[in-house]
Amino acid sequence: MFKHYFPILEWRKTYDRTAFSSDLVAALIVTIMLIPQSLAYALLAGLPAEVGLYASILPLLAYTLFGTSRALSVGPVAVVSLMTAAAIGSLGLASTEQYIAAAVALAFISGLMLILMGIFRLGLLANFLSHPVISGFITAAGIIIAASQLKHIFGVQAEGHNIVEIFTALIQRWDVIHYPTLGLGAFAITMLFWLRKSFKALLLRLNVGQTLAEIMAKTGPVLVIIITVTVTWAAQLVPAGVSVVGDIPRGLPALALPEFSMQLWQQLLGSALLISIIGFVESVSVAQTLAAKKRQRISPNQELIGLGAANIASSVSGGFPVTGGFSRSVVNFDAGAKTPAAGAYTAVGIALATMFLTPLIYFLPKATLAATIIVAVLSLVDLGALKRTWKYSRSDFSAMLVTILLTLLYGVELGIIFGVSLSVLLYLYRTSMPHSAEVGLVAGTEHFRNIDRHKVQTDDKILTLRIDESLYFINARYLQDRVYDLIAKNPQIEHFVLMCPAVNFIDASALESLEAINALLKDSAVKFHLSEVKGPVMDRLQRSHFIEQLSGEVFLSQYDAWQQLKSEVADSKPRCSGTLGR
Amino acid sequence: MFKHYFPILEWRKTYDRTAFSSDLVAALIVTIMLIPQSLAYALLAGLPAEVGLYASILPLLAYTLFGTSRALSVGPVAVVSLMTAAAIGSLGLASTEQYIAAAVALAFISGLMLILMGIFRLGLLANFLSHPVISGFITAAGIIIAASQLKHIFGVQAEGHNIVEIFTALIQRWDVIHYPTLGLGAFAITMLFWLRKSFKALLLRLNVGQTLAEIMAKTGPVLVIIITVTVTWAAQLVPAGVSVVGDIPRGLPALALPEFSMQLWQQLLGSALLISIIGFVESVSVAQTLAAKKRQRISPNQELIGLGAANIASSVSGGFPVTGGFSRSVVNFDAGAKTPAAGAYTAVGIALATMFLTPLIYFLPKATLAATIIVAVLSLVDLGALKRTWKYSRSDFSAMLVTILLTLLYGVELGIIFGVSLSVLLYLYRTSMPHSAEVGLVAGTEHFRNIDRHKVQTDDKILTLRIDESLYFINARYLQDRVYDLIAKNPQIEHFVLMCPAVNFIDASALESLEAINALLKDSAVKFHLSEVKGPVMDRLQRSHFIEQLSGEVFLSQYDAWQQLKSEVADSKPRCSGTLGR
Repeated sequence: MFKHYFPILEWRKTYDRTAFSSDLVAALIVTIMLIPQSLAYALLAGLPAEVGLYASILPLLAYTLFGTSRALSVGPVAVVSLMTAAAIGSLGLASTEQYIAAAVALAFISGLMLILMGIFRLGLLANFLSHPVISGFITAAGIIIAASQLKHIFGVQAEGHNIVEIFTALIQRWDVIHYPTLGLGAFAITMLFWLRKSFKALLLRLNVGQTLAEIMAKTGPVLVIIITVTVTWAAQLVPAGVSVVGDIPRGLPALALPEFSMQLWQQLLGSALLISIIGFVESVSVAQTLAAKKRQRISPNQELIGLGAANIASSVSGGFPVTGGFSRSVVNFDAGAKTPAAGAYTAVGIALATMFLTPLIYFLPKATLAATIIVAVLSLVDLGALKRTWKYSRSDFSAMLVTILLTLLYGVELGIIFGVSLSVLLYLYRTSMPHSAEVGLVAGTEHFRNIDRHKVQTDDKILTLRIDESLYFINARYLQDRVYDLIAKNPQIEHFVLMCPAVNFIDASALESLEAINALLKDSAVKFHLSEVKGPVMDRLQRSHFIEQLSGEVFLSQYDAWQQLKSEVADSKPRCSGTLGR
Repeated sequence: MFKHYFPILEWRKTYDRTAFSSDLVAALIVTIMLIPQSLAYALLAGLPAEVGLYASILPLLAYTLFGTSRALSVGPVAVVSLMTAAAIGSLGLASTEQYIAAAVALAFISGLMLILMGIFRLGLLANFLSHPVISGFITAAGIIIAASQLKHIFGVQAEGHNIVEIFTALIQRWDVIHYPTLGLGAFAITMLFWLRKSFKALLLRLNVGQTLAEIMAKTGPVLVIIITVTVTWAAQLVPAGVSVVGDIPRGLPALALPEFSMQLWQQLLGSALLISIIGFVESVSVAQTLAAKKRQRISPNQELIGLGAANIASSVSGGFPVTGGFSRSVVNFDAGAKTPAAGAYTAVGIALATMFLTPLIYFLPKATLAATIIVAVLSLVDLGALKRTWKYSRSDFSAMLVTILLTLLYGVELGIIFGVSLSVLLYLYRTSMPHSAEVGLVAGTEHFRNIDRHKVQTDDKILTLRIDESLYFINARYLQDRVYDLIAKNPQIEHFVLMCPAVNFIDASALESLEAINALLKDSAVKFHLSEVKGPVMDRLQRSHFIEQLSGEVFLSQYDAWQQLKSEVADSKPRCSGTLGR
């Protein structure tokens, strides 16, 4: 039990020199990549840049202790930072101190929720986020994030809560664009895209080894930072009006529990839940993908505890909500991280940077950070998924489209909530009018098929309806209607068989409908039979009085039903036995 | 199309003298029964008594024009009256005029909603009310209504919004019980119960005919009214403090459209929706039960229009929300109503009573009306359903229990909303970890069964998993986990077959999971096959790239899969062909 909650007790047993050096190299590379990313995501969340560094130290240590993925790298990520900005932005706080306090509280509540969900094994809450909803949400969040960063590229003030507001504000500021900032921003974006697309190929042509080339390509963005910092310093662009990161407090954050404010916590509760679930889904899907590549398994419920601990750790060290990020984890994995210890070494790296390197980034232009974010999030935008989903399923497509549009136009929280609700409603609707078919015997076999699609044997007095869905409250009345219609149209029948090979359960509402059908058929002198009822369904039916009251029988197979009823019908009408048409 | 919306055009063609006289007799009986009921339900809704009469005239005519049930009797009913009281009570209105205006508006909005639902064929919204939820709700509403009437029986002031408040208030007034009122109330309750239980038997013993005895038993409550009115008048109980109905305005209501107030309408919107759906469900289940007895059909979507028209009619004539009632419809049916025209004649009867008989009920004690309500609603209370449902299904039971408790403790609206939400969540939970089984061939047949339950043939290198549920977002990750586990535990397998006889659809999220499974199995050199995929599911899969990418094949039957894979496995390892254990 104890070991269960501390996966570290498992993997440290086999921890050796090779694993250590692999982890150390991976940590170094991830550290270099994380510094600008952490600063950028803090700004995206509306927080001072150093908060991003704070959120990248203790959370990594906490995840090392409690997490199960061997490659996941935890810290600030784009989507969760955007959700943090949305959650806190709606509170209307006046000062930066209050804003930071709210972010710290948000991380704490989200951490508590994740741990509770882990203890109570509620990882399945994440199942509510269907693939179209999560994919639509991430695409829309990527677009909003990129749009929200354009103001830093253009060097103007332009805030907005949705895509329309953001673009309206940008267009209004068109005449006050700050060209030195735009120059730096455009350079950074172009260079980042180039690094991503062509740098690795170039290095390979220069005979750099495959692995090294890959690692250099991933850490390439540091080049952009070095260049833009140097230019800003050398060309004295700060007096010319280019916004830079500026003074960052040197040293590690003080540890403290967040202050408890009933009102603030209540306001943040809903947002914290959404952030927890979205963060968990994003993190687990990255962790599962990477684990599968090495035939390892992760435990989703233990991951909840790992991410919860990371958020609590972020909160007590003055950080904001964190989760496992895709790009940083892939870099960690590709760089050869063998165990969660790589995360701990990365934490040490970032702590050292926080203590000693912050003066070096005084001249880092905000436009460069914005460019980093834009290039990172545009890779999340997958509009092709809309087309693929449209082709596969209209209802999945509509859930995706609603999520994208509402997220873009009304913000991240409404987007998710409506997307999830719509998926559930569409699913219920889909099961509300289940497929059913009148079936007959395929001659020479024991198989029964749809009479509309196949040439099959039927009998005037026996009608068999196969129902292809579990029976429950949403479709119980539909079943009743369907049977009543069939009986009204076929007044000559004597036996009605409901064939249930795809009925996985029958709830109390559907039982009520079956009882109503039984009563109606009894009044019409039609016997009501069931066939191919599954074991667990039959067990349950036997707990009610339905089977006793049933006017007919329950047959194991439809063929049994057919043979017996056929002979009964023949027996009861011996004088017709010579007629044709049977 | 036109005929479709006016069912009257159908049945009036065959309307003859017999039908006319049957309808007239039924109307007379229903009228006698309805007068006290209408007054009582208006008081229950918190409205002046005459509003109950107004709601029993035009709505019946409107339903006659648009309804499809031949026996349904529309008017004020207990549960909807309680919901009206709850909806308007929460507005905090000061004057009776405002209260009536709100009731009129509520009927109007509800009527509009019902008509819109009918036009857009949204009758299936009613499916959300599972049987346990509706039955729990009606039981709880019955208890609350009975409790709320006790104050009239005890002759004290005791208001409350939930069962605890009501009983607390009653206990606090224990010392000011008005004994003359209590005497009348106790007499009325006892006599009403006796009439219901033993009157018919007594009449039969006195050689009264079966039908007449039944009708007299149903109209028996009028006796109680006559007796208590006479006693109150003769013993001069009004000066002694017994509350009576008193002066009721004589004459028909003036017709007027309700005043439109944006604020009021917005406040009533949610309540109107709940009232519409509950009213519709109650009405349709009564109508369907009665129609089935005579092999008639009703059209649920047209019923929405009929009930909508009835509510609009109630609203324009100063009434409150109405629906098809159980007891009144049964009386109408038993009394021999043949067509909806019986409703129109009842409307005429009540109109005449409103014009001429109201002075006669000046002395009608409110305690008598309370007794009428109590006896009527206690028949709705079915606590035995709790036990039956517990036995059949724990999850249906919990939905029922939550609905009952929340309705009793927090009011009708919260009770319904949480009951419905819980049913949906429990259903989703039930499908989130679908039943699945590793299967093998039953020797000598073409059937495959669970290897844990049956003696079956299997093969070391072929693993078949049968999944017994449609695959969609809620269970997509579970399936992935299940397959990964099986593969990890059986490293020797070469073929994995997913058998899908009970899979009725595969949504985009599940498709994503199948693609992930395919990729993982490919990496492990295991071929991924499907078997027994249904036609519509296969059609959809072919719209994606999944089938092309699938490492294995799609087999029509599991037996085909078994035979072919068996031979492949044998071919690839000819040297093992002599070993045992196959």
